[in-house]
Amino acid sequence: MEPLESCAWVRNAGPLWQQATTGRFLDALADGSLPAEAFNRWLLQDFHFADALTSFQAIALAKTPWELRKPLLAGLAALGSEMDWFQSVAAARGANLGGPPHPICRHYCDFLLRVAYIESYPILLVVLFGVEASYLAAWSRLRADGPYQEFIRRWSSPAFAGYVSSLRALAEQHPRDSSQVYFEEVLNHERDFWTMAWEG
Amino acid sequence: MEPLESCAWVRNAGPLWQQATTGRFLDALADGSLPAEAFNRWLLQDFHFADALTSFQAIALAKTPWELRKPLLAGLAALGSEMDWFQSVAAARGANLGGPPHPICRHYCDFLLRVAYIESYPILLVVLFGVEASYLAAWSRLRADGPYQEFIRRWSSPAFAGYVSSLRALAEQHPRDSSQVYFEEVLNHERDFWTMAWEG
Amino acid sequence: MEPLESCAWVRNAGPLWQQATTGRFLDALADGSLPAEAFNRWLLQDFHFADALTSFQAIALAKTPWELRKPLLAGLAALGSEMDWFQSVAAARGANLGGPPHPICRHYCDFLLRVAYIESYPILLVVLFGVEASYLAAWSRLRADGPYQEFIRRWSSPAFAGYVSSLRALAEQHPRDSSQVYFEEVLNHERDFWTMAWEG
Amino acid sequence: MEPLESCAWVRNAGPLWQQATTGRFLDALADGSLPAEAFNRWLLQDFHFADALTSFQAIALAKTPWELRKPLLAGLAALGSEMDWFQSVAAARGANLGGPPHPICRHYCDFLLRVAYIESYPILLVVLFGVEASYLAAWSRLRADGPYQEFIRRWSSPAFAGYVSSLRALAEQHPRDSSQVYFEEVLNHERDFWTMAWEG
Repeated sequence: MEPLESCAWVRNAGPLWQQATTGRFLDALADGSLPAEAFNRWLLQDFHFADALTSFQAIALAKTPWELRKPLLAGLAALGSEMDWFQSVAAARGANLGGPPHPICRHYCDFLLRVAYIESYPILLVVLFGVEASYLAAWSRLRADGPYQEFIRRWSSPAFAGYVSSLRALAEQHPRDSSQVYFEEVLNHERDFWTMAWEG
Repeated sequence: MEPLESCAWVRNAGPLWQQATTGRFLDALADGSLPAEAFNRWLLQDFHFADALTSFQAIALAKTPWELRKPLLAGLAALGSEMDWFQSVAAARGANLGGPPHPICRHYCDFLLRVAYIESYPILLVVLFGVEASYLAAWSRLRADGPYQEFIRRWSSPAFAGYVSSLRALAEQHPRDSSQVYFEEVLNHERDFWTMAWEG
Repeated sequence: MEPLESCAWVRNAGPLWQQATTGRFLDALADGSLPAEAFNRWLLQDFHFADALTSFQAIALAKTPWELRKPLLAGLAALGSEMDWFQSVAAARGANLGGPPHPICRHYCDFLLRVAYIESYPILLVVLFGVEASYLAAWSRLRADGPYQEFIRRWSSPAFAGYVSSLRALAEQHPRDSSQVYFEEVLNHERDFWTMAWEG
Repeated sequence: MEPLESCAWVRNAGPLWQQATTGRFLDALADGSLPAEAFNRWLLQDFHFADALTSFQAIALAKTPWELRKPLLAGLAALGSEMDWFQSVAAARGANLGGPPHPICRHYCDFLLRVAYIESYPILLVVLFGVEASYLAAWSRLRADGPYQEFIRRWSSPAFAGYVSSLRALAEQHPRDSSQVYFEEVLNHERDFWTMAWEG
């Protein structure tokens, strides 16, 4: 698989790519110093995010021509399983998934859903690629070790990388004038989300 | 599983239920007298319909709260497989899936997509139940025999009946004042679709 | 103002343009032989259509960049007045605006609303132009005389022609590959609507 | 007209109402100490906001039953004129309306558009009432004097108050379980917007 850095949208984003895929929360998670409460707080926010992302992906699927839908269907099924997994992880950790979304989380979700309803599928494809690629990059930088290794492994796995690669192919086959702008809007939200995860 | 006739929406629809789930096309299919060309013509229309239904189900999924999404996710995955199956069946039969939708098919698809974008999820649940329940009922009336038995078995299978049953439970838990009206609008389109299948 | 027949979409539509802008209902209306009941029946359907068209135009306005919105805002305001006018005309004629839409009317409305939510504004502009241009053409063929002259004058007026002309300019500045297809879908619905008006 | 404070949604919002309708930007504007650059910077953001609000109101109009649409049509026409007025004011002041929206402005716009597409009209009515009522309250607290009196007069005028009053009546006639939640989400965004106006 080609490295994400060979992607023009990543390269053109400049330092924003790094900002969107690193952060003190991730550092602390990797070196094992992240307090359980901080992780659980993030888990709740990521659960809200995954819920909104499910809606985003569903609408993207609805708008995409049938011959391109395969990776989107697989992604939606995987996200469905992830919602179950969130709940079992939260139960095991005594984390509460019933709290409200943080304003920063809401902004990201509102952005995704606004775009889902308004834009056409080529834009939705680049947005979805941006979401998943930055997530893969963020977790792939970390050594899969320590108390959070299960999570690091999950989002740096070859299976996830393969999915991101199939999204990249789809998105790159349907570039639009505004693709770069939307890709960078995603990165802005990712950066803010990691900051929020750390600062609470 | 409770018979579909115990459902209040079915009973209140009166003779429309029977009209939506029978037809000369189905009779001819069951007694083996249906010409291959007529079947292939229908296959193309059903393919267009399944394409629009995928979009409908995806938007319904997007709008439904996450704790109710399981049957919708399963249904979407099944419909994804059905799109593949359509193509292999069409290839095996020499049927062309490249033709345009018939106006009657378009009307049904336009109805589904209009409702998907405008209505809230309780209405989408009853519409989806109406689509699948009437399909199950139509095929379940037929003896699984003769040249089209593969198709009769597919849409009268216990697995499909179980799916319809889970949609029914979801829809019945979220009744709305206009549920009956939408259920009957679906039946009107189903009736017209079977008539179109026969008349071409 | 350039004649509508100079528009490429009109020319490429071939005989469909004529079919969408003529009909026995219009002939009878022009020669005064149309029974009042038939006219009132049509008035109800046109009222339902105007209601759905309001929603279509509103969504088109929502999706169109602000610097292009002027004719859409004017059109929406005019349609708002037309809804009031419908009610005063219906009251004066003893026509009932409370009945249900005819299936043919529903199909047209479902088409408009499906397109409104799914397509981007350049397609919505050509659809709106198609709706209004064919209406203008249909009424402009008639001599403004006899018992229905008020209606003939209304929809063949220079003000309405000017509006159609501004929609044409907007739509022609934003052509898309599928513009012709959508323009012709509108004409199909217009033709069916006039047929329904006559046949009831 | 009843004071806004008699509205249950306002009262239940507690101190958030005050936070959403006051701010150092407004204070400085009222006492004439606000620098022209700060005002112009806000003008650009308010222009972006008015653009998104136009889309929101248009979709609300599309979803609202025709017999309730009058105030929405009037509001949309007024907003259309306001977009023109923004441009003439900006031209007169040498303010640039071509810059990008601030992230805080984007969040508010994304919220409005997400809600517009997903929620049904009773929610859209309470959101629109929240937007306009808090704006009216914010400007009505100020003495219409000094270099910015034109703006203070505009948004504290009896005409604007009458419009807000008609939106209130509409929204109060269609309460929903989640109306309060949405009303307060609007106030959160209003508060953040005024803070952003001051801090830049």
